[in-house]
Parts: sequence; structure tokens; C-alpha cells
Amino acid sequence: MGPGDKASEKAKSMAYDLGKLIAKEGWVTVSGGRNSGVMEEVNKGAKSENGLTVGIIPGNDNSNTSESVDISIVTGMGSARNNINILTCDTLVIVTESMGAGTASEATLALKSKKKIILLSPDEVTKNFFEKLSKDLVYTTITADETIRLIKKFL
Amino acid sequence: MGPGDKASEKAKSMAYDLGKLIAKEGWVTVSGGRNSGVMEEVNKGAKSENGLTVGIIPGNDNSNTSESVDISIVTGMGSARNNINILTCDTLVIVTESMGAGTASEATLALKSKKKIILLSPDEVTKNFFEKLSKDLVYTTITADETIRLIKKFL
Amino acid sequence: MGPGDKASEKAKSMAYDLGKLIAKEGWVTVSGGRNSGVMEEVNKGAKSENGLTVGIIPGNDNSNTSESVDISIVTGMGSARNNINILTCDTLVIVTESMGAGTASEATLALKSKKKIILLSPDEVTKNFFEKLSKDLVYTTITADETIRLIKKFL
Amino acid sequence: MGPGDKASEKAKSMAYDLGKLIAKEGWVTVSGGRNSGVMEEVNKGAKSENGLTVGIIPGNDNSNTSESVDISIVTGMGSARNNINILTCDTLVIVTESMGAGTASEATLALKSKKKIILLSPDEVTKNFFEKLSKDLVYTTITADETIRLIKKFL
Repeated sequence: MGPGDKASEKAKSMAYDLGKLIAKEGWVTVSGGRNSGVMEEVNKGAKSENGLTVGIIPGNDNSNTSESVDISIVTGMGSARNNINILTCDTLVIVTESMGAGTASEATLALKSKKKIILLSPDEVTKNFFEKLSKDLVYTTITADETIRLIKKFL
Repeated sequence: MGPGDKASEKAKSMAYDLGKLIAKEGWVTVSGGRNSGVMEEVNKGAKSENGLTVGIIPGNDNSNTSESVDISIVTGMGSARNNINILTCDTLVIVTESMGAGTASEATLALKSKKKIILLSPDEVTKNFFEKLSKDLVYTTITADETIRLIKKFL
Repeated sequence: MGPGDKASEKAKSMAYDLGKLIAKEGWVTVSGGRNSGVMEEVNKGAKSENGLTVGIIPGNDNSNTSESVDISIVTGMGSARNNINILTCDTLVIVTESMGAGTASEATLALKSKKKIILLSPDEVTKNFFEKLSKDLVYTTITADETIRLIKKFL
Repeated sequence: MGPGDKASEKAKSMAYDLGKLIAKEGWVTVSGGRNSGVMEEVNKGAKSENGLTVGIIPGNDNSNTSESVDISIVTGMGSARNNINILTCDTLVIVTESMGAGTASEATLALKSKKKIILLSPDEVTKNFFEKLSKDLVYTTITADETIRLIKKFL
């Protein structure tokens, strides 16, 4: 999970790497599915390794769906679909670099559902906030590689 | 789309055949994803031909998900998820044999979203009702084979 | 529950009468809340007797909300909000005159949730279909007055 | 918006005061509607001044609804209903004292929808995080009184 239109170059680059590594493991990439920012890049990365990609779309149709999404779930629910993203994923990686309110809502909804979240390269303010919300469910990593290694420990 | 716990043997058999034929075409099977009735059988049929199967689950977890579902979308929304089933599918096939209220809600929500529906082997009462709701969007077929041929015409 | 933009004059008139009688009983009127058809009229009728009106809105804001709605619940979920209408009401009255697919989805979702529905002045095709779906939960009335008397029996 | 089962005494006391003052202004109190924590207290406070109270319920029925809720909207959507809370409110007051992940998701979803949020008596970690997410939409107050005065400026 991560920012759309306002994603920084660093956030997009991390997302691409992450998608690539997820696909290499044979895992399915689930994202918000739109054709912008972290959503676009994680799917591009996954497809570069022939991974399977699922997008959970806020709109009523696929006009803003990433072309790198294989399976597009059209919810027509706007941001209420964020909770479906959370319930559907086994592990959530939050790209906190240039994070916006939508991504933050996914991270908090995940904690509400007692799901583990991995904050990828968070700043201090963000890290402090999420660790205050939950000590047990919040993990921090610096790179996409480290993130994959951590997820493997969870399995 | 079709009945769960109350599906008749005929409904289940038609669903199995339909899933098998969908997979043979290389199409993705989307269903309500539960491990009962038409949902279970359409996914079993699709997997018998190595098709890809997507289930859109009403509950909060996968405890009632069909084992033949590859991609399970966990909505936690109960019957409100029926609208997601509709928005996600390109074409909807409604197994009307032993149809219950849940399936009927999917057929009506599809018409509300201006999507074509194919009623598979409907009785007169059901056929009359849906044709009254929409002349243009309601099609009727007798067999799974005929259904696939009709969908091909839509493409 | 009843049709919006395509509501006939008879449907609107029945809705107005119904809202008026609901308010006279001191009951709360719940509807889809938009400023058209049966939704508009049932709220107008209720306000003519100073009833309290609740609208459950499909859109993201109140730009299409009836001015006769006191409490507007903004869902941003499109037709998926139909299930909220159903879960929120104690008893559902379905204005079947000029009924469209959206209203039909509400009636079927109600049956799926084991809620009683009252079909107000249905044609034979509609009556037959709903009675086929559920013998126990489907009631039929001819007038708004008769509908109120029936609801009182349920209480 | 604020914590349920894990609400501290201070959080509950602030919520009660807030509900009371909202009702004195003649405003409608909207909350998550459950019979615990901040949700219970804000509604109790509002009813102590005969205010109108609306609860947007996560479950499928009213078994956990506060008795101080007048209008109960039953969503059956779990935490996905948090987005409806946000879209429905004109102004959001977030009781941050003993705040959990659910409340944090409401605050972030509000910012995603470009709605103003008022953080009532936040600690530094929480304040820093939300001000990082949005400078323009995040306000901070210390008391219920000050919160009401701020909302009046928004009107």
C-alpha cells in the first residue's frame, strides 16, 4: 500500500523493487490498483517477473486501473474499499515515503483488524505514531529485500 | 452467480459445466467464493481445466471460502459485496435453477449497473420478471454450451 | 423503497401518502434519500406531518439529496448502499408500481436478510416472482392505509 | 470519533461533555454508535440535553448499539463503515486520548476526503503525525468548550 498521485520518485522506485521481489517469490501482489504512484509501480515490478497482480479499485469501472493489474476488482466504494485491501492481504507493506492520508488509513485499518504491517523506510514521526498505536503488529524495514526476508519469517 | 446452501443437484451440475467451459476459453471465473452450492461447483469445474478463479467473499476471513478459489477477496461486507461481484464481472451468468434471494439481488444489481445478464435455464416466473425489468439486458440460455457461445458474441 | 427518476405519477402519489401516514404514527421514514421519484415523495409526505426522515445516499455528497431528508447518511458506495437501507429498516415497503432494478435489488436483499417486505400494489409478474423467492416474508397490500395497518400487526 | 472498549476515563469524560455541548447548539451527534467508550458517552451527553443522535453501526444488527442512539444505521460492513462516518459528518472531532487504530483510521479517512478534523487534546506524537499528513485540515483543541467555539468559526 502506498501513495498514488503524490508518490515521490523514491517511493515509486521502492514499490517497483518490492513488486519484482514479491513476484520472484511466487506470491500474489495485491494493491489499490490505480494507474498512479506506488500502485502503478508495484504492479509493473510484479509483471516484470510475470507475477500475478490483483487491484482493488475504488471507482465504478476500470478507467483508472493500472494496465499491469491482471485481476481488477471493481468496488465502486471509494475509500471504503481500503478495508477490503486490508482484509484480503496476508501481510501488508506500507510504503511510508511521501505517504498520504489514504495509505495511512490502510495502515490503521490493518491494525484495527489485527494484521501485521511492515513500514518500509518510515520517518521518525510516522514510526513513532504507528508504534504508539500497536507495539506488537508494527514492523520496520529499510529496503525491499529486507522486507521480503521479514515476510518469509512470518510464513 | 447462483445459490449456495440451497442449490439443487441440477444447479450444481450446470455450474460445474459452466466453470469448466469458462476455463477452457481462458477466461477468469468470478463468483461469490463460498464453499457451497453453485459457488463451489463453478470453481471446481474451472480448476478441472486449470482456470483462474476469483472469489469475492462476504465474511471477514476465508473460513468459508471454496478450496477451488485461487484469489480470495475478503470484503467483510456481507451481502453488500454482491454489488462488487457485479461491477467486477464482464458478463454475468445467473444460475436460476433453485435461485434464492441473494442470487436474485445480484441479477437485479447487474441490471441497475446496465450490465448484461444471462439467465441459465430459468422458469417462466423468473424469466417474466427479469424481462419486465429490462428487455435489452436480459438473455436466456438452456445449457452451459449455449451460454459460452452467447458470451462469445458479446465480445 | 421505490423507483427514482422513472417513477410513475401513481408510484409518487402512493409514496407521498405512505410517508404522511408513517409520520402520523410517529415512525421514522428511511429511504434511499435522493431528490427524485419515490424517495423524494415519501420524504415530502413525511415532512408534511413533521415526521423524521433519514436518507441513505449512494453518492459522495449531498448534491442529489432530497431537501425533505433530515438526516442524510452519505455512503459513497453507489448501489452497495442498498444493503444498508435493508439492514437499517424494521419493515420494508416496496413501491412496485414502475419498479426498476434498484428497487428490486432492495426487495431481494431484504429477503436475503430474512426481513419482511410489503409489496405495495404489485402486478402479477412481480408478485409471482417474490412469492416464489419466499412464501413467508412477502406480503401484499393495495393502499398506503392498508400498509400501515399491516405494519402495526407486525409490531 | 474515538475509542470504544479501550477508552480511558478521561476520553469518556471529554466525549460526554462534547455530546452535551453539541446538543445544546442544536446540532446532530454522529458516531460509530456502539455501546462502549467514547461512542456511548458522546451519545449519553447529547441525550442529557435532548439532542438527536445518529449511530453508524458496524454489525448486522443492533445488539451492540448504544441505548442513547436515536437513529441507528446498520451497515453490516465492519470497519469499512468508518468511511461512511466521515462522509456523513460536517466536522469531525477526534478524541485522541487513548486513541486506537479504528479512530485513527477515521481521522485519516477524513483527511483523504478533504474534511477538517479537530484533534481533541492530542499528545505530541499524534499531533505531529496528523500535521505531517495535512497542514491545512488538522486543528487542535484542549477542551470540549474550545472545540465547539472552533466549529462555530467553521460554519
